[in-house]
Amino acid sequence: MPADEPGQQSRRARPTLSEIAAEAGVSLPTVSKVVNGHADVAASTRARIEQLLGERNYRHPGIRRGRHAGLIDVVFNGLDSPWAVEILRGVEDWSSAHGMAAAVSSVRHGNARPASWTSALASHDTDGVLLVTSELTTDQLHQLRDEDIPLVVIDPVNLPEPDLPSVGATNWAGGISAIDHLVSCGHTRIAAIGGPESYLCSRARIDGYRSALERAGLRYDPAIVRNGDFYHEGGFLSAAELLDSRDRPTAIFAGSDQQALGVYEAARQRGLRIPQDLSVVGFDDLPVSRWLSPPLTTVRQPLAEMGRVAADMLGTLIEGLPLASRRVELATELVVRGSTAPPPGQDGKRA
Amino acid sequence: MPADEPGQQSRRARPTLSEIAAEAGVSLPTVSKVVNGHADVAASTRARIEQLLGERNYRHPGIRRGRHAGLIDVVFNGLDSPWAVEILRGVEDWSSAHGMAAAVSSVRHGNARPASWTSALASHDTDGVLLVTSELTTDQLHQLRDEDIPLVVIDPVNLPEPDLPSVGATNWAGGISAIDHLVSCGHTRIAAIGGPESYLCSRARIDGYRSALERAGLRYDPAIVRNGDFYHEGGFLSAAELLDSRDRPTAIFAGSDQQALGVYEAARQRGLRIPQDLSVVGFDDLPVSRWLSPPLTTVRQPLAEMGRVAADMLGTLIEGLPLASRRVELATELVVRGSTAPPPGQDGKRA
Repeated sequence: MPADEPGQQSRRARPTLSEIAAEAGVSLPTVSKVVNGHADVAASTRARIEQLLGERNYRHPGIRRGRHAGLIDVVFNGLDSPWAVEILRGVEDWSSAHGMAAAVSSVRHGNARPASWTSALASHDTDGVLLVTSELTTDQLHQLRDEDIPLVVIDPVNLPEPDLPSVGATNWAGGISAIDHLVSCGHTRIAAIGGPESYLCSRARIDGYRSALERAGLRYDPAIVRNGDFYHEGGFLSAAELLDSRDRPTAIFAGSDQQALGVYEAARQRGLRIPQDLSVVGFDDLPVSRWLSPPLTTVRQPLAEMGRVAADMLGTLIEGLPLASRRVELATELVVRGSTAPPPGQDGKRA
Repeated sequence: MPADEPGQQSRRARPTLSEIAAEAGVSLPTVSKVVNGHADVAASTRARIEQLLGERNYRHPGIRRGRHAGLIDVVFNGLDSPWAVEILRGVEDWSSAHGMAAAVSSVRHGNARPASWTSALASHDTDGVLLVTSELTTDQLHQLRDEDIPLVVIDPVNLPEPDLPSVGATNWAGGISAIDHLVSCGHTRIAAIGGPESYLCSRARIDGYRSALERAGLRYDPAIVRNGDFYHEGGFLSAAELLDSRDRPTAIFAGSDQQALGVYEAARQRGLRIPQDLSVVGFDDLPVSRWLSPPLTTVRQPLAEMGRVAADMLGTLIEGLPLASRRVELATELVVRGSTAPPPGQDGKRA
């Protein structure tokens, strides 16, 4: 960004449209109309606003490189997760409805090429970036800011800056709903498998688990709470330990659908039937969860909706308009299917 | 290709670089260098080629709108299939390695908006299009040709024009390998569930099934060959009929991994254990297939590799170079996991 006072103004500093509006004594939508070339603004008002925009050196985020690119970038932390495509469906819905293209890129595993995605973005014009559960370093964030690229994060793992616009789901409430359901089935010994301990979404789910147990008057036992990796293997290994323990749980809150798949396999290898011998609740409601045997009871995250909402927030930023809220959490919802039932002995189904 | 007689020349007609090279008496790479603005061509040669390009009205596919867009479009027939993201991983691999962006769009279910994806492409610059298992109408194909957009099809469902560049897998050989494996386990009563009857890939798989049976001296019985939809429901409904029939098969070739999921559920509902009471072979090797209970024996399609190869073919077309082959089939491979075993009674495992 050009500096009027050398040495003082960084490339990042630029006036917001709100500031321009306040200074011109007009409403924000009026400034936005001028910026976006709409006709219905009085000539004298337009002239005053354009003068201010010029004086303050305003640059439209979307015309950073001289024009709208008609393109937003969606950056995934690896494209191997089945929820990536769910989020992408929502983004694509929004972008096709808004005449934009959605370009997909992927940060490689373990950040082996940490700078690659920001340099990839530099290879083509982009109007804005959606970042999906990627861990963002401060350097990467600054690079985006230096380029004036609007950014929205979906389901943030770590939030390096609290003011970063983001979309998530009500993970804590989702944990509550899973445990409430198991308690209502009659379970009193309920284990939990979280994701990686550093993930905010995982901590929120496990905190919901704990709160729901306490509300039900059940003891929170750290011995049956594990941290997995959100993938099949984490669920399988944690469930193997839980199911081999002396005081075996009758239900497992698996923390993610992929971990629930691992729980299914650990149970099968021990000859335990779901739900007769063991109840399982997932988290995500991936398409596959309703096709499992038995179909999985799970906490639905509205992944496609999260993609749509994030893309819409990004569109607002690209237009240079302020966001109604910088942090949006969409509601989760329990979906009861065939993997939960009363515990063995309570309904005569015991093996 | 080009017609010199006026009235004959359509917008579609344009000379290939090979024709220009032949006429100029130079090699194809030399013409390509001139077209792509490389420096290392002798001035007199460059002048001769440029004159021919002008006379023959050559238009570079990638500079149709005046410049390279740095963008390819990947059009899916709905983003709800789990193999969409597998193909996308390969395309993204290629495009990030080549400094291109890959924009994703989706044809809506049942072609409710049949023209939407071609009009969506018109909303932004694109260098070329990858079409993934979409049914292409002749009109849509002509629209792409009229715009001089290079096109490669992945796993074509129907081929409206035999010369359309395409990438698939060896579906017929995959069907053979599935049945050979079941026969070697000792099965003699093997059912098959194909996809929609009109799909070439499905017909190839079922033809492979039939050939392998005949080679093994087993009778082909149309009563135990069904057509599904390649999704869970098709597998579930077909398997329900097969498993309720009097002369129940001991093994089912499910035609796709998603149909195999449906077979698992139909078996579970009947108290049949996999693989002890029923062997199941899928097709695709989606990530989820190794996480099923039991893990699924399946025919692996190299989906990511198909995406990479198709993107690379598209890159060749964008450069204006000829393809080594217009139809590429990548090898399938049987992956043996836990869902196949000898038939009941042959190994003492009978329930």
